[in-house]
Amino acid sequence: MKQQKNLLSNPPYLQLAIDIPYLPEVEKILSKISKNNLDKLLIEIGTPFLKNEGLRQIVPVIRNYFPENYLIADFKTLDVGKLEVKIANEGKVNACVVSGLAPLATIISFIDECRSLGIDSWLDTLGLTLEEILYKIKQLDNFPNVIIIHRGIDEELSGKTSSWKIVQELRNFVPSLIACAGGISLDTVSGPLIHGGDILIIGRAIYNAENPYGVILDFYNAMI
Amino acid sequence: MKQQKNLLSNPPYLQLAIDIPYLPEVEKILSKISKNNLDKLLIEIGTPFLKNEGLRQIVPVIRNYFPENYLIADFKTLDVGKLEVKIANEGKVNACVVSGLAPLATIISFIDECRSLGIDSWLDTLGLTLEEILYKIKQLDNFPNVIIIHRGIDEELSGKTSSWKIVQELRNFVPSLIACAGGISLDTVSGPLIHGGDILIIGRAIYNAENPYGVILDFYNAMI
Repeated sequence: MKQQKNLLSNPPYLQLAIDIPYLPEVEKILSKISKNNLDKLLIEIGTPFLKNEGLRQIVPVIRNYFPENYLIADFKTLDVGKLEVKIANEGKVNACVVSGLAPLATIISFIDECRSLGIDSWLDTLGLTLEEILYKIKQLDNFPNVIIIHRGIDEELSGKTSSWKIVQELRNFVPSLIACAGGISLDTVSGPLIHGGDILIIGRAIYNAENPYGVILDFYNAMI
Repeated sequence: MKQQKNLLSNPPYLQLAIDIPYLPEVEKILSKISKNNLDKLLIEIGTPFLKNEGLRQIVPVIRNYFPENYLIADFKTLDVGKLEVKIANEGKVNACVVSGLAPLATIISFIDECRSLGIDSWLDTLGLTLEEILYKIKQLDNFPNVIIIHRGIDEELSGKTSSWKIVQELRNFVPSLIACAGGISLDTVSGPLIHGGDILIIGRAIYNAENPYGVILDFYNAMI
C-alpha cells in the first residue's frame, strides 16, 4: 500500500469546520478572522453548507479572505466517488472527504481519483467502530491522506474521557494523518493531541464566539 | 408506527434523477422537456449536483421549467438530520433523502423533522442488505414516506447487481412507497414494477438521449 506525499507536512493543525449553511452569514465570520497570518489554519466547507450554497459559489468567497489556506470540501461521499472528486478538483479545493460508510468500490475510486488529480483524500469514519475502520482500510490499495475520528458530544458529557485512545490505536496501523472532531474545547484540547492526533477540528467553539480570531489564537497557543 | 399522509398518492411515477453537476448544462436539458404536461414526473436534484451548485441556486431554475412537479433533494444525509431538513424546507422542495447508512439518531431526527415541517422523508438504502434495512426500520418510530432501493453506480460498474426481488420482500414489511434506482432501461423497466416498485428512477437514459422528452414518453408508455 502506497502513501501519497501529503500536502500537510507539518502537524499539528487547527481546522475550522463551517457548518453554517448560509454564505452571507459565513462571510461575516470570515471577515472577522482574515488578514491575519494563520498558516496552521485549515478551513472545512461543511456538508450542509455545501448542499445549500454549492462549492462553486462558496470557494471564491472563502478565497477572498483566505487565498492560501488549505481548503477541504466535506462531501461525505457515498456514491459516484470519481465524479465528486472531479467536482472538488474543478472547485480548486485542496482536499475532499469520502464517508467510511460508502461501499468499498466508492472509497477506492475516490482515493484513486484524488491521487490521479493530485488533491488530498480524507476518510470520515463517522458511524464506524475501530474494528470496522481497520477492516475497510485493509481492503484499500492506497491509504487516504487523512482519517477523521469523531467523538460524540454525548460520550464526552457522560465522562468517557478515554475515547481518544482510538487515535493511538489507529496510529499503529496507518501512516495517514489523523484528524479529531467532536466536542473539543480549550479545556480538552490536549486529549486528542496526547493520543497522537494531528488535526483538531473545531466548529461552533470558534464561529459562535464573539471574538473568533481570539479563540483561534487561544487554540493555537494550547496546541503548541 | 405511524405513516404520514404521503404527498404522492397515485403511483407509479417516473423520476428524473439529475446527476449532472453543472446548472447551465442541466438548464439546457430541462428546456427540452418542459412546457409539457408531465404530471407523473418527479424531479430529483442529485447529490453531486447539489454539492456543486447548491439547493438555493438550483431550485429557482428548475421551478422556471417545472413550477408544479414534485421535487426531491437527494441529500443522502449522514449527520445533522434536523439541519438538513430545515435547508430542504427553506429550499421549497417536496422531499429530501436521508442515507440508511446514517446513525439511527440521525435517521430518526430527519424523519421527525420532515413530519413536523410537512415535507416527505425518503430513505436511501444504498449499501445496505435487506436484513440491515429491516433491522433499521424496526427501530424507527415512523416510516419514511418513500424507501429507495438503490443500486449505486460504482457498485453497478463493478458488476455487483442485485435482483429487484428485494422490492417484493420489503413490501411485506413497510407501507412506504418504494422507489427503484440503478441501471433501469426501456428494456428492463418491467422488472421493478412487476416486483411492486412505485417509482422508477432514471437518470442518464433520459438526459443523455438526443430527445429526452421522447424517452420520457417511452418510459411513461412502458410503465402503464
